[in-house]
Amino acid sequence: MSEALTTQQYISQTAAEVEAALKSVLPANWDVPAQLRESMGYSVDAGGKRLRPVLVLAAAEAIQRNPAAAKAAMPVACAIEMIHTYSLIHDDLPAMDDDDYRRGKLTNHKVFGEAMAILAGDALLTHAFYSIVQSARVNGVPAEIALQIVEELSVLAGASGMVGGQAADMLGEQGVTSIEQLKYIHQHKTSDLIVFSLRAGAWIGGATAEQLERVTEFGTALGLAFQIQDDILDLIGDEAKLGKKTNSDVEQHKVTYPFLIGLEESQMEVERLTDVAKQALNQAELEAPARLFGIADYLMKRDH
Amino acid sequence: MSEALTTQQYISQTAAEVEAALKSVLPANWDVPAQLRESMGYSVDAGGKRLRPVLVLAAAEAIQRNPAAAKAAMPVACAIEMIHTYSLIHDDLPAMDDDDYRRGKLTNHKVFGEAMAILAGDALLTHAFYSIVQSARVNGVPAEIALQIVEELSVLAGASGMVGGQAADMLGEQGVTSIEQLKYIHQHKTSDLIVFSLRAGAWIGGATAEQLERVTEFGTALGLAFQIQDDILDLIGDEAKLGKKTNSDVEQHKVTYPFLIGLEESQMEVERLTDVAKQALNQAELEAPARLFGIADYLMKRDH
Repeated sequence: MSEALTTQQYISQTAAEVEAALKSVLPANWDVPAQLRESMGYSVDAGGKRLRPVLVLAAAEAIQRNPAAAKAAMPVACAIEMIHTYSLIHDDLPAMDDDDYRRGKLTNHKVFGEAMAILAGDALLTHAFYSIVQSARVNGVPAEIALQIVEELSVLAGASGMVGGQAADMLGEQGVTSIEQLKYIHQHKTSDLIVFSLRAGAWIGGATAEQLERVTEFGTALGLAFQIQDDILDLIGDEAKLGKKTNSDVEQHKVTYPFLIGLEESQMEVERLTDVAKQALNQAELEAPARLFGIADYLMKRDH
Repeated sequence: MSEALTTQQYISQTAAEVEAALKSVLPANWDVPAQLRESMGYSVDAGGKRLRPVLVLAAAEAIQRNPAAAKAAMPVACAIEMIHTYSLIHDDLPAMDDDDYRRGKLTNHKVFGEAMAILAGDALLTHAFYSIVQSARVNGVPAEIALQIVEELSVLAGASGMVGGQAADMLGEQGVTSIEQLKYIHQHKTSDLIVFSLRAGAWIGGATAEQLERVTEFGTALGLAFQIQDDILDLIGDEAKLGKKTNSDVEQHKVTYPFLIGLEESQMEVERLTDVAKQALNQAELEAPARLFGIADYLMKRDH
């Protein structure tokens, strides 16, 4: 990966590589009921920034200054995108957020029906773990590291992680009144998978325990900044750039950072958290952290 | 475990040990939104035969003639019960089978709401993988074996396994006409988790490749026999013993073995498959196969 790429170019190029890899992880000739395969592929192909897999690969490369590490991490990058995708499919269900559109396309259950959407989500979640194992089977990641990554995903995507955040979000829909409650939701719904992505890449890159700790701090602050920026963009973003309607949080009476502490304070909080993130990254003393610094800045300034 | 126990006593006693272990796998003081924790625990505690975890432990012991192997396999036994439980929670949802009761208790979504039931299922599925890793972390199972078990679960419970079977079942509800289609559904919906359970126990017990193959044949035949027996009991079983209404398959227009090939033929098929299973088990030449033989006979003769 040439250093001359801008962050945006790096993200686009890496996202394209992830999308190619996802196609081989969900092969068209897979021995699976055709409609289930289509339903899984429909949502995986639906695009998005591919931020989480890009973070896996960027972290692996940052530790090792070695593109081979990023290559070895690709099955894990695919795994986290499958987890993210399954969570969106289930989130969009009528019993949950009841969304008909996502990224300008009909949501999974609108195309394949609710039952198939539930099963496609279950299958993607399960297949993510298969993909992690392939990093050991095919890409030479040591079994101990692959098992460590399985464990971290099961925690950070599970009841005490992402699913816990979604449950808290749902339970709190009528009653989130404090920034602490909202922080809990954002941390688990959003930061936990970002932390996982960075840590998984770092594990594969061969990070030290100290580096892993700093990378975790980086991810926690970055994830929260990312989510607050999402809240802000929903309020003042450009619908054309976002590819979705703004003000949906207000219409759905969602409690957000801007709602609780105001727009200006929220913008300052994004900057502050990005600084916190970059400071932790500095302390990690990685071999080649430039991409990760670039991504942190890029996310803070993004308009979509 | 004394050899003097009957099969039924062995199953009951082992099921009780699994239930105790499940309590520690889902600790009451877990840092998880309380309602999510309750929803997960509600369905895990809802009973049932605990057949799959019992098979994990029985297989481990059969290979090694060593109760230590069964002890090491306990986290995997808990994992498969969590997988089975999540599949029932999602299966019972209004968008799927729309069941209000299971084993005489209200189904998860009737108590906790649909959204929480979806999330509880997702969380149990995710936590199953955590539990498998604990067999290495706590119980000394080698990382390579734990990773192998993660991989097998991700296949046998995933799109090409259990979830695939459920999808085929759902898609075929109006049009299953051949025994081959029904066999596909039964194999994936039911046999795959039984095969997983036996193989996982065998891996932990230290089985040879040849033994693993025979154990797989045993599980495939046993799982199919088990499911046909289920179909039969739904038709002619005793409601009091079954703890559920009979004839539900007929009322729901489900295609079953008795529907396709008749009751008597189905009963003969259960016996034939049990013989096939026992023959494979014989060929596996395990150290102490008596429990597995006992379970095969017990399942064939069961009335609930």
